[in-house]
Amino acid sequence: MAQAIPESHVGLLKKPIFAHFVTLMKDGSPQSTPVWVEYDGKHVIVNSAVGRLKDKNVRRDPRVALSLTDPENNYRYLEIRGRVVEITQEGADDMINALAKKYLGKDVYPFRQPGEQRVTYKISPDKVVAYGA
Amino acid sequence: MAQAIPESHVGLLKKPIFAHFVTLMKDGSPQSTPVWVEYDGKHVIVNSAVGRLKDKNVRRDPRVALSLTDPENNYRYLEIRGRVVEITQEGADDMINALAKKYLGKDVYPFRQPGEQRVTYKISPDKVVAYGA
Repeated sequence: MAQAIPESHVGLLKKPIFAHFVTLMKDGSPQSTPVWVEYDGKHVIVNSAVGRLKDKNVRRDPRVALSLTDPENNYRYLEIRGRVVEITQEGADDMINALAKKYLGKDVYPFRQPGEQRVTYKISPDKVVAYGA
Repeated sequence: MAQAIPESHVGLLKKPIFAHFVTLMKDGSPQSTPVWVEYDGKHVIVNSAVGRLKDKNVRRDPRVALSLTDPENNYRYLEIRGRVVEITQEGADDMINALAKKYLGKDVYPFRQPGEQRVTYKISPDKVVAYGA
């Protein structure tokens, strides 16, 4: 059952704060990476490239977690556990450009590799813990 | 097989930077929390309290992950996958006080709850990825 991000903490997902995004390896062990993140009011959104470790992991097992702290107060943070409910390449180029705008102030994502196919994950937050005021 | 933290990035574990610490829930899904962290040259060290979610998780399944970014450059970061190889209450009060000194500049950990039993996890880094110069 999806849970909403509390009003008090939704701003953390709107600011250019890195989230730590956890996926599960083939053997079930966890893997965590800092990522750019967005929130559409219902899903937490992460963008990656087809064939990367995270991409393989979420296609195999959609269970993920995210955590992020307010850089101005590390004792104010969000923990999210959830599932990737949609994996799509549609709009994924626009999404990575929007994230580049948010995190780098650039209109176009500058780190694209030749042949790279961007992919968007929509994550349903099933359990949300918000710490701090 | 334990891996060393590269010289170039060991400083990230020595500064008062929050690490995002991942444990596995009973159903195998991941859970991530910001934590204080230390490094003894061999193990990454995390301190918690007996009976907390993380404590139950690592006693059930020792497979964990950590990631942390340089707050001065988010594109410089460490990803660690490993196992909790030791769980001990011995010296755990001294350890949380040392962490309070590192992260808060206080000699004594100020958040202790009545009856709280501190516990230290020593994590063997089995797979380390260091990004950025």
